[in-house]
Amino acid sequence: MSYKKHSFSSLSVVLLLSLLVLQANAQTQHETTIKKIYDEALLRGQSYPMLTYLTTKIGARLSGSPQAAAAVEWSRHIMQHYGFDSVWLQPVLVPHWVRGEKEVAIIQSKIRSNVPVNVLALGGSIGTGTAGVQAQIVEVKDFEELKTLGEKNVKGKIVFFNRPMDATKIQTFAAYGGAVNQRGAGPSEAAKYGAVAAIVRSMGSNSEEYAHTGGLRYAPNVGKIPAVAISTKHADLLSEILRAEKEVTVYIRTTCETLPDAPSFNVIGEIKGKEFPKEYIVVSGHLDSWDVGQGAHDDGAGCVQAIEALRLLKQIGYQPRYTIRAVMYMNEENGLRGGIEYAKQADVKKEKHLAAMESDRGGFTPRGFTMSVPDKTKTLVQSWKPMLEPYGLTDFSQEGGGADIGPLGPLGVPLFGYLPDSQRYFDYHHTQEDTIDKVNKRELELGAAAMAALTYLIDSSGLK
Amino acid sequence: MSYKKHSFSSLSVVLLLSLLVLQANAQTQHETTIKKIYDEALLRGQSYPMLTYLTTKIGARLSGSPQAAAAVEWSRHIMQHYGFDSVWLQPVLVPHWVRGEKEVAIIQSKIRSNVPVNVLALGGSIGTGTAGVQAQIVEVKDFEELKTLGEKNVKGKIVFFNRPMDATKIQTFAAYGGAVNQRGAGPSEAAKYGAVAAIVRSMGSNSEEYAHTGGLRYAPNVGKIPAVAISTKHADLLSEILRAEKEVTVYIRTTCETLPDAPSFNVIGEIKGKEFPKEYIVVSGHLDSWDVGQGAHDDGAGCVQAIEALRLLKQIGYQPRYTIRAVMYMNEENGLRGGIEYAKQADVKKEKHLAAMESDRGGFTPRGFTMSVPDKTKTLVQSWKPMLEPYGLTDFSQEGGGADIGPLGPLGVPLFGYLPDSQRYFDYHHTQEDTIDKVNKRELELGAAAMAALTYLIDSSGLK
Repeated sequence: MSYKKHSFSSLSVVLLLSLLVLQANAQTQHETTIKKIYDEALLRGQSYPMLTYLTTKIGARLSGSPQAAAAVEWSRHIMQHYGFDSVWLQPVLVPHWVRGEKEVAIIQSKIRSNVPVNVLALGGSIGTGTAGVQAQIVEVKDFEELKTLGEKNVKGKIVFFNRPMDATKIQTFAAYGGAVNQRGAGPSEAAKYGAVAAIVRSMGSNSEEYAHTGGLRYAPNVGKIPAVAISTKHADLLSEILRAEKEVTVYIRTTCETLPDAPSFNVIGEIKGKEFPKEYIVVSGHLDSWDVGQGAHDDGAGCVQAIEALRLLKQIGYQPRYTIRAVMYMNEENGLRGGIEYAKQADVKKEKHLAAMESDRGGFTPRGFTMSVPDKTKTLVQSWKPMLEPYGLTDFSQEGGGADIGPLGPLGVPLFGYLPDSQRYFDYHHTQEDTIDKVNKRELELGAAAMAALTYLIDSSGLK
Repeated sequence: MSYKKHSFSSLSVVLLLSLLVLQANAQTQHETTIKKIYDEALLRGQSYPMLTYLTTKIGARLSGSPQAAAAVEWSRHIMQHYGFDSVWLQPVLVPHWVRGEKEVAIIQSKIRSNVPVNVLALGGSIGTGTAGVQAQIVEVKDFEELKTLGEKNVKGKIVFFNRPMDATKIQTFAAYGGAVNQRGAGPSEAAKYGAVAAIVRSMGSNSEEYAHTGGLRYAPNVGKIPAVAISTKHADLLSEILRAEKEVTVYIRTTCETLPDAPSFNVIGEIKGKEFPKEYIVVSGHLDSWDVGQGAHDDGAGCVQAIEALRLLKQIGYQPRYTIRAVMYMNEENGLRGGIEYAKQADVKKEKHLAAMESDRGGFTPRGFTMSVPDKTKTLVQSWKPMLEPYGLTDFSQEGGGADIGPLGPLGVPLFGYLPDSQRYFDYHHTQEDTIDKVNKRELELGAAAMAALTYLIDSSGLK
């Protein structure tokens, strides 16, 4: 072995060791920063008081409502209060649907006489008019069964979609995904065969007294019919009465209606990046909610976690390389206009986005993050697991981002979704029960810290 | 290369492939069985109705109470009802402490006059007598501080232990472990320096109105003094008043007392093993609870999960190789007499135990299992992770079993603890809030299925 070769080899070893030491230092630095983020979130966190204000002082905030306007103002104030570098409103025109009077639905059973049941009009539905609709019920499990029954069995009747969420799916979002077409597309499917109204089994994990609302999408070129969600408990009851009596009629009365589009806003706060001030990392939630409950988990939690993520980074004295934006999207629930407008403006202004992240699965205990990113990015982010696992973030395997950041996908922006535990989500989702008392303070705080930690890693390491 | 050698090599390959196929088949078989367990638990699970009965029809069940006796009878009935091969009671004499009248505690502030605060006598504490105790407060954070103050600052006073659980610990059990010596050993530590009573900050994760009870252990050869837990909110208030006024007295009145030991039972149900009927796998929880709330998470959840685990295995038609026992231990909270007696009898009767498992961390969403087992066993169990991860069981890294199965450890029994998410546990632990409405049905069911799945894997694979 020549001296020169030996020397070169020694040099290689030294370089390699130096590199390893640098890497180890970087990891230690990351771990220290992440620990600081969590300590701040858990000792002096503001996510829970913020959510308490949003849910109890403002409450439910459907697009176009005075409460949605109040939530816009509140978001702007709170981000200014925390001293973000700039806070502004991005105008967006939103659908303005109103529920009207409390819905009435009565099963006209021959044996039990009149049985009132709990229903909520589906968002976007037309009303029945004040006279209501009364017709015979035909129950189906899916669109295939509806098609088989055909016009001769459906015309003039109320179609009752009654396929439950599959309880054997461990991830409740998968169970939701397997049932929600009944709510979204069911009313128009029923209308194709001449149905006069639709009743949809609520998208809930359990047997419950209260109904779950949610949006429907009328198909073009099909007549609109009124549609309601019925509580899971009353769906079972209706099905039971149908089995016993065969011919059963139901009376429904709803006075919901769609008003002209209303002016509203996305609310954006940012902390300026020192290296790449014109490149952005979005951390977000959606500010609107349904009009029942308080929109605590859906998606007050996501909003306060996004704001808190920026506050945490600022509070520990971290100076971001990229500009970090907290975005409170408007109108996720019944239009996605905010998400679409944000992406449109980003495209028009040629704003480069390094990444976008959303929390819209509730303020529950952390499990990980979903990703819609190139394979190389996925591998990079998964290499950060050892730094995140001590905080309960272990699942980085699932595909996904979030509804509001979805429109950024086609612009090539890597998308991330905060992934909390899903077991309790569909107990509250779109119901009167989605209230602050269902949110655990520590779980909410851990979610905010998780978002701040991933934002920090993306910002400091880049995604190359 | 000789023909023979070639032939031998081909044979090796065939054998190796056969082995791999067998292994793959075994894994597929395991996965199918585990899926059956979960489907049964989630579609037709009995853990939630069982827990509803135990918590609402029987309620809190402190050792020696009529409710504890009712819980024993209920456990026996329900396991017979599910057709377990044998169900019997194992006698055990238990401590019989009673709380007496509702506790009174009043801060005698000069500025605010009298401020009543929420306290609960600590389990095992002597009472103050009906006249109560009134003395000046001295606040300490730990035993070091108490020692530094010494007899001259402590004698004749009430020591107020006010070190909070460390909110920055991600696992709340670690935070509990770091604070609970104040409750267990604090009263006797204070008595050593002449204190007349002790007030201990509740072991709670948050600021709450209600106190957390729990056991104390009087040291031998130290005079016993009365001790209470104060709610975290009122602990903060007391500390604030102390800072403002320096000299503050508190009046405490408790009438708790310890009666003679009472006869009670562990309740044991078993399904006979077909290969090793005289070797046992224990699946367990503890039947007793504190006397406030309903003992829903602590540890009604563990009990119904243990019974449900056996029911699930039976229901899917699984015939165990080993005899599987559901054990409802009595007296975990204030004596551990049931756990000690079970291990003693196992030792006397030379019963061989393959493994013992306990669920005593609440009925929350699954995270994994703790283990106190030899390294080889740990490696084996960790090799099952790919089959358990789809069910949210990802953490197999932590040491531990369970208090009641602890006494089996010295007999060489591998110990396992069901590990649910810990974030909400210390909101309810030992309080009036530990009630059925704090238990999520799906989370409880997933825990029962997790225990059944691990029991199945241990039974079918052994632990070699």
